Amino acid sequence: MSSFRTNYLAENKDRFLEELLSLLRLPSVSADPKFREDVFETARFIKEKLIEAGADGVELCETAGYPIVYGHKMVDPSLPTVLVYGHYDVQPADPYELWDSPPFEPVIKDEKIYARGACDDKGQMYMHLKAFEIMMKEEKLPCNVKFMIEGEEEVGSENLDPFVRSNAEKLACDVVLISDTSMLANDIPSITSGLRGLSYVEVEVTGPNRDLHSGVYGGAVANPVNALCEMIASLKDENDHITIPGFYDDVLEISESERAEMAKAPFNEQEYKDELGVGAVRGERGFSTMERATIRPTLDVNGMWGGYIGEGAKTVLPSKAYAKISMRLVPNQASEKITELFQKHFESIAPPSVKVVVTPHHGGEAAVTPTDSDAYLAAERAIGTTFGKKPIPVRGGGSIPIVALFEEALNVKTILMGFGLNSDNIHSPNESYGLFNYFKGIETIPHFYEEFAAIKAEQ
Amino acid sequence: MSSFRTNYLAENKDRFLEELLSLLRLPSVSADPKFREDVFETARFIKEKLIEAGADGVELCETAGYPIVYGHKMVDPSLPTVLVYGHYDVQPADPYELWDSPPFEPVIKDEKIYARGACDDKGQMYMHLKAFEIMMKEEKLPCNVKFMIEGEEEVGSENLDPFVRSNAEKLACDVVLISDTSMLANDIPSITSGLRGLSYVEVEVTGPNRDLHSGVYGGAVANPVNALCEMIASLKDENDHITIPGFYDDVLEISESERAEMAKAPFNEQEYKDELGVGAVRGERGFSTMERATIRPTLDVNGMWGGYIGEGAKTVLPSKAYAKISMRLVPNQASEKITELFQKHFESIAPPSVKVVVTPHHGGEAAVTPTDSDAYLAAERAIGTTFGKKPIPVRGGGSIPIVALFEEALNVKTILMGFGLNSDNIHSPNESYGLFNYFKGIETIPHFYEEFAAIKAEQ
Repeated sequence: MSSFRTNYLAENKDRFLEELLSLLRLPSVSADPKFREDVFETARFIKEKLIEAGADGVELCETAGYPIVYGHKMVDPSLPTVLVYGHYDVQPADPYELWDSPPFEPVIKDEKIYARGACDDKGQMYMHLKAFEIMMKEEKLPCNVKFMIEGEEEVGSENLDPFVRSNAEKLACDVVLISDTSMLANDIPSITSGLRGLSYVEVEVTGPNRDLHSGVYGGAVANPVNALCEMIASLKDENDHITIPGFYDDVLEISESERAEMAKAPFNEQEYKDELGVGAVRGERGFSTMERATIRPTLDVNGMWGGYIGEGAKTVLPSKAYAKISMRLVPNQASEKITELFQKHFESIAPPSVKVVVTPHHGGEAAVTPTDSDAYLAAERAIGTTFGKKPIPVRGGGSIPIVALFEEALNVKTILMGFGLNSDNIHSPNESYGLFNYFKGIETIPHFYEEFAAIKAEQ
Repeated sequence: MSSFRTNYLAENKDRFLEELLSLLRLPSVSADPKFREDVFETARFIKEKLIEAGADGVELCETAGYPIVYGHKMVDPSLPTVLVYGHYDVQPADPYELWDSPPFEPVIKDEKIYARGACDDKGQMYMHLKAFEIMMKEEKLPCNVKFMIEGEEEVGSENLDPFVRSNAEKLACDVVLISDTSMLANDIPSITSGLRGLSYVEVEVTGPNRDLHSGVYGGAVANPVNALCEMIASLKDENDHITIPGFYDDVLEISESERAEMAKAPFNEQEYKDELGVGAVRGERGFSTMERATIRPTLDVNGMWGGYIGEGAKTVLPSKAYAKISMRLVPNQASEKITELFQKHFESIAPPSVKVVVTPHHGGEAAVTPTDSDAYLAAERAIGTTFGKKPIPVRGGGSIPIVALFEEALNVKTILMGFGLNSDNIHSPNESYGLFNYFKGIETIPHFYEEFAAIKAEQ
């Protein structure tokens, strides 16, 4: 790292942290309408910070939902262009009672920042604004840069799709750079080389047209909660194989050599179980834990409710039961097709005593980043420089559906250079982000720009 | 009915209704601690009204929970004594949004009173206070009377048990009279000749020790909601027969002749389905709908929850899932034994990847009232007089666990002379009680006293 950059980072470290804490204090929960004004305020915060950092043409691009913050710095048309993508919205913080400190009052403890969004994605996204500020101050921006920071990633990025498609020229670039993934460990740097897709649905099961007394009607009228349990249970067989007809048809099976390569990544199953407090792992028969979490499709209930869920006892035979169900998909499985297969199957297994409605929430396609691309090589070198170790490629289990969108609409590959850790509790209570990771990210990003520009210059 | 009683009822009809509406405005939800003060206020309301009606020795008997209201009128030691039991607490009113009018703001519409507790049990219990008032005003009380009105029926009457046992002398009587059940229809009067028992448990299933990101861990770690669905689904087989080992061991099978007798009660399955809005009934194979609802044991989920249940989508693999499960029991099935069988079985079917805790809530024993008892005959004659039709005996599906308690601790039989209808939506939104039923009950009760005293005098 240039001595200018080292010095500037050291001098501004406290401010860089304070700015992130201010950002984390804004409860930008996109899924819950009651935080609507906060989400808008967060968008304005990002806009101001982009302007302060030196970006041009900064604007809040209106959408049917929350605005997309756009800004750029075009230094030289002959240089490659990096499009930085991130999101300023966060997951809901429920259940609040499991947080050790309030989710929107960030605290620093044991060298970590605790707050909703600390890692996903405010902490990781904001690194890019600060790295950009440093390069601007040094007056050495190795690439042109465009920022596109959205506010609906946690609810399916529905409005990003039309925005990207209708602004393809404005967003033209050589690579999309995203920090919204994790590394294996701070001393085992890695780059996410693939992501799973997603199909997310909500189901509603209706039994009788009103809540009934379970003494008067119990045993004679179908209970929608019992029925929903049966239907959900039937979605997997005794090998935890998903039973939806056609579900696995398009899955690209991984070769034995690739599986062998994957198996070399450091993984200790006992530590994994201990850290999660489970007595046994569980998943599809015939695959390892790491395979189950990355290269195999899944089906999970993300939420379920029905009947009386307050304190004490109520002898009700409920009218309705609900579940939110998501399926993680692997490359070649099309999200829309899987949603249709689910819907058709779920409706077909409903007993005649209940009615079922399946509502698709959102989806996204799986993606794979080739490990021999220019961007991968640039990220590999950048991380190698700042971590002192060559990062290893790892398939991730999560979904960033917009990776497939960028490939299709902008004809450009994405590099997933994330600095989080699996232990950061993203989407969970007590989400955190290490101070080490925040500042190491800010330090690494300018190296990526340099390496990417250098590789492109050679071509 | 004596002309005095007819006139007094006519003159005080409006006040009798107004008093019930005042009682219904008190949200005495015993299951929910936030209504604690309201439950106490309701007890004081009943106490005042008993005193006004002319009872002696009226007191609030303290318990470990909510007080029991006691009062009596002993006219002559040679007369039989009737112990009136009722409850002033009500079921929770959730879900509030399904009520057409607020549950604790009673309204009268289409000749019915709409409010939580209108039928169960405030409306039915309060008839006894007003019938008592009329008999006192006439100065013709045919029996001695004792009132015991409790405030914890909807949460299992836990504190009634020790109270009854330690006050057996004070509560000594010849019959317990309860109006907390229903009739077949206003033109098909009936008397409940049996009730099911109850075993109510809550289960907690824990997967990982914290909520996880379903993308990062999904497929590799057991999801407690999916696991709970599987476990609940496995509690019944393809014939809707309950699979808990030993569950049916003590069930007294009903004779074919009794089943044939039951089948004569008026029942139209198409009307039943239409009224509930279901396409098909569902229950244990080999039994009719009426049998399933009365003489067969059941297992129903009364409430279930886990994961994210707010608006929108959250890709969480939850740490915990919960269900409230109740089983209706038939004569000879012991509640405690069934609870133990459930607990043992449920723990045994938990996969090693999750932890299960089963917490018993409350229970109660099934009961049968012989149709040739003095009290049954008295009720049959009283209803015959006021309805102009002989009532038919019907087995009920609900549970009034204290019936078994009275039999055991006081060595006395209970008569279930209820005036509700199944369409009253007890335990559901839009609970109601017909004005016809309220006033017909007040009219009928003094006849019961007269008939019971006459039968006893002959012995």
